[in-house]
Amino acid sequence: MLTLTRTEAGENRHRLTATTGVAALGLDALASVSYGPQAIVLALAAAGAAGIGWTLPVTIAIVLLLVVLVAAYRQVVHAYPDGGGAYTVARRNLGERAGLVAAAALIVDYVLNAAVATAAGVAALTSAVPALLPWTTELCLAVLVLVTLVNLRGVATSARAFAAPTALFVLAVLVVIGIGLLRGAPLNPLPDPAPTQTTAAVGVLLVLSAFANGCASLTGIEAIANATPSFRAPRPQRAARAQTLLGLLLGVMLLGLAALVELFDLRPVEGRTVLSLLVQGAVGDGAIYLVVQFTTVVLLALSANTSFGGLPVLAARLAADHYLPHAFGLRADRLVHRIGVLVLAALAAALIIGSGGQLDVLVPMFTIGVFVGFALCQTGMVRHWLTRGERGRRLWLNLVGAVLSTVAAVVVTIVKFTEGAWLVVLVLPLLVFGLRRVHRAYAVLGRQLGLGSLPELPRPEAALVVVPVAGLSVLTSHCLSTALSLGHKVIAVHVAGGGQPAECQRELGAVWTAWHPDVPLVLLERTRGGLGATIAAYVRGMPEKQVVVLIGELRPRSGWIRLLLNGQGGGIARAVRGRSQAAVCRMHYRLP
Amino acid sequence: MLTLTRTEAGENRHRLTATTGVAALGLDALASVSYGPQAIVLALAAAGAAGIGWTLPVTIAIVLLLVVLVAAYRQVVHAYPDGGGAYTVARRNLGERAGLVAAAALIVDYVLNAAVATAAGVAALTSAVPALLPWTTELCLAVLVLVTLVNLRGVATSARAFAAPTALFVLAVLVVIGIGLLRGAPLNPLPDPAPTQTTAAVGVLLVLSAFANGCASLTGIEAIANATPSFRAPRPQRAARAQTLLGLLLGVMLLGLAALVELFDLRPVEGRTVLSLLVQGAVGDGAIYLVVQFTTVVLLALSANTSFGGLPVLAARLAADHYLPHAFGLRADRLVHRIGVLVLAALAAALIIGSGGQLDVLVPMFTIGVFVGFALCQTGMVRHWLTRGERGRRLWLNLVGAVLSTVAAVVVTIVKFTEGAWLVVLVLPLLVFGLRRVHRAYAVLGRQLGLGSLPELPRPEAALVVVPVAGLSVLTSHCLSTALSLGHKVIAVHVAGGGQPAECQRELGAVWTAWHPDVPLVLLERTRGGLGATIAAYVRGMPEKQVVVLIGELRPRSGWIRLLLNGQGGGIARAVRGRSQAAVCRMHYRLP
Repeated sequence: MLTLTRTEAGENRHRLTATTGVAALGLDALASVSYGPQAIVLALAAAGAAGIGWTLPVTIAIVLLLVVLVAAYRQVVHAYPDGGGAYTVARRNLGERAGLVAAAALIVDYVLNAAVATAAGVAALTSAVPALLPWTTELCLAVLVLVTLVNLRGVATSARAFAAPTALFVLAVLVVIGIGLLRGAPLNPLPDPAPTQTTAAVGVLLVLSAFANGCASLTGIEAIANATPSFRAPRPQRAARAQTLLGLLLGVMLLGLAALVELFDLRPVEGRTVLSLLVQGAVGDGAIYLVVQFTTVVLLALSANTSFGGLPVLAARLAADHYLPHAFGLRADRLVHRIGVLVLAALAAALIIGSGGQLDVLVPMFTIGVFVGFALCQTGMVRHWLTRGERGRRLWLNLVGAVLSTVAAVVVTIVKFTEGAWLVVLVLPLLVFGLRRVHRAYAVLGRQLGLGSLPELPRPEAALVVVPVAGLSVLTSHCLSTALSLGHKVIAVHVAGGGQPAECQRELGAVWTAWHPDVPLVLLERTRGGLGATIAAYVRGMPEKQVVVLIGELRPRSGWIRLLLNGQGGGIARAVRGRSQAAVCRMHYRLP
Repeated sequence: MLTLTRTEAGENRHRLTATTGVAALGLDALASVSYGPQAIVLALAAAGAAGIGWTLPVTIAIVLLLVVLVAAYRQVVHAYPDGGGAYTVARRNLGERAGLVAAAALIVDYVLNAAVATAAGVAALTSAVPALLPWTTELCLAVLVLVTLVNLRGVATSARAFAAPTALFVLAVLVVIGIGLLRGAPLNPLPDPAPTQTTAAVGVLLVLSAFANGCASLTGIEAIANATPSFRAPRPQRAARAQTLLGLLLGVMLLGLAALVELFDLRPVEGRTVLSLLVQGAVGDGAIYLVVQFTTVVLLALSANTSFGGLPVLAARLAADHYLPHAFGLRADRLVHRIGVLVLAALAAALIIGSGGQLDVLVPMFTIGVFVGFALCQTGMVRHWLTRGERGRRLWLNLVGAVLSTVAAVVVTIVKFTEGAWLVVLVLPLLVFGLRRVHRAYAVLGRQLGLGSLPELPRPEAALVVVPVAGLSVLTSHCLSTALSLGHKVIAVHVAGGGQPAECQRELGAVWTAWHPDVPLVLLERTRGGLGATIAAYVRGMPEKQVVVLIGELRPRSGWIRLLLNGQGGGIARAVRGRSQAAVCRMHYRLP
């Protein structure tokens, strides 16, 4: 996932080294250690102890895939030192449609990352405090609301600030692995697993399923390649070094945890994460256990936060290219893409509610999106080399990467199709369709507006200003002054009915004549549609081409006095704008 | 309660006779039979069988009060043939403040009538269908929502339509009383009462409490005097006859039911209304029982409906006299005072939720309001006779009425103070204070606006029109045409920043020069407050006295295309109106 935040992108002095780069950009990838191995174990547990015995071999396969992808992404870093996200690489090498598929996959990923990281964080929390387990969904939503509020206020998230929890988490996991491997057996007997029946034998499908699940461990490794510009010179070298370091750390942790699963003869326990069981087995359930759990919670909350940094920026970029409504490009007062943040929060909340905050439902969906991105990026790289005449090792490496990513994406989709993967299969093409539809609509709008060519020169016309009046007051005089300043012709209109007796109207007519303001007063009978509709109908009947309806509104200083004003200005404005071609001018008159 | 509905007030041909007048206007009073006697029995039940033996004497006292009040109100009918509600009589004879107290009491009554009638209707329903008992509050709110929706749509409620259920209800109750008295004992043994302990001895306080409760039976007898204009000529005679007839029917029903309570040796049963027990005792629980119960439900729902006819009209009258915000005087498309209806529904719902739909909490509060109205009306009549030099029987009758109503109001307030009466004691003066405060604020507003005197004549000034532009398009040309039609001087402004790169701005400047529209383009740097604040700040700096900001907005034909437009017009309009004196003109440009 892209972890670069907007504020940082603009700051040139805070550049990353290989080490700080891993801490800052590797956050998502390293955090996936807290749900990736668990996904493998849960899949294999269907075949009982015999199944769980396959944890290490499956993990080794995944680490091999990791090695290939890390090597392949090192080449992306060198080829696209300006940041080679799947969207960029696919769009440049494979055309608009592939770029849009990559963009759709990225959107899906950001949303799922927010949901998965939140759910995993809460799972780490409920593992430590089991009493909270019944409120899983509520806790997830609470975390999500918190992260959303922080992002709406526009926190200046520096990737650098993420370094400390990331480092602490990696260190703690490595220490746990080291102690666990030295000890060779759990410190205390692990909690009894729930009495689950063995529902499957060890077979190709089971192992494939475990592999598909475990691919979730690799989500996030593309972040460094996406963010090459934020490294210190020489950028590609430092970024490539960071990519290798990230791969190394992730591989060691995955293998180490898988080895612990074997050594400890671990079985999944309802309501506990696999990581929490392994930590408990290695160091007991004292202070260290709690420290690891709470570090995990913080890390995962930060990991959810990266979606909030990434999706709104991606959406703004798509909006600038006319693939999403331009509103996604708007920034609120604190430079926040508010709409993007809110849409992300709503979608993630829907996923959490739909899945009940259960990781095993969310993780496979997440994996598909990520691997579609990998596959497009690697395929783009293959094309990149082909167009440059490169036929050697570099072409082959990316080709292998492309093939393996594609195979992984297909395997996950097929194996998990009925468990939620269908949703991604449905959403991806719909998203691409939607993006293209928006693009076409903007093209039509542009033609209608004559964008790119000089429009006709503006021509003044005689303007008629219509002023609705409720009675005779200082406000009336003020409005008519403005109206006379603007229009070649001014007409005051008064609508009778709607509670007012007819005498009021006759009286107003008489007072108007006495006042003699050089503006005719037209008395209208209120029609069924109400005040606004009556005025709109009158305005439509005027022959002038330029008609302005000028509405004066009182604006008292103190708030509660506003309740005393019946505030019909808004209703008249809406009705006139909706039912006529007239422009509506609203003017506030401040009372002392 | 005032039962005259707005549509009827205007129709001259549908005038009431004495009989139809009772059916139409006596609805509320007759419906109170379904909760008044019950209130007596519940109060006395605290002293067990000995207590309930006092039902008949207490009822006789209440019927004596009824006789006095009916005679007194016959005089109101003759003295105020144009409708002598407590508000009118108190205001004319006792001054503004007494009138406002009466108005406040009426407001409280209308709200409590809606709550009490709804709760009593649901109690009749749950008596017949005990399975519904746990959903009492929900059922009350459902009835309230139904009545509210019907009234928001503006049903043409004719008082005449109420005649049939009223007549059916009275007939059924009279038949039940007749059969019961003839039979002399319950047909089947009545259901066992809940084992309640006797918590009080028969004493003055208990009997007073029962009397206070039973006064609820008299609510609604003022409706005929309020609505004298809707009778056929000779109005006062017919209305007075209706008043007598109503008193007679109500008195007979109250005495008959009290006699049945004695004969049947009735004890209150949890979850059953007293009326339903008496009906069951007289005619069993077959078809007739169900008919009576469901007639009661319908009658009480109609009785709640009269509040929706009355309060919004009263509020509109108070708004016309500047005692309530004028918004209460506005009518929606179907001549409904929508705000009055919604405020009534909200307050009644709050009461029902607060009381859990329990009648014994709501009824005493209701009674206080009603008797405050009685007392003010009768005191006003005393003053009426005094100013006319009348010192005879008529003065004395109203004096006795005034004294008895005041005593009853004081007794109910004291006896029921801790059981909810404090709320009415608190709300009445607050309401009066609020009404006067609103009146004063309108007086200040009127002076500020120079109402009642001719304001200065309007003076045209040179106007500056500022047009914010996002780019160069057909919309820009259209807006500038309107601006040039309106202003002596037109300036286009473009705000950079907020996502747009600076090149866009430079480019727009170049294109503008090429277009050469005879309107200067000013480039503004976006400030922290956002687009609207930037433009508002610029406008504030202009020396012209008349400044208009003209905002052009696209209005595409198809709905979803609107999502593609970023719709910043509203935000700019709000910011400019809020932060400057400029008028804001919004113009829709329709796309094909």
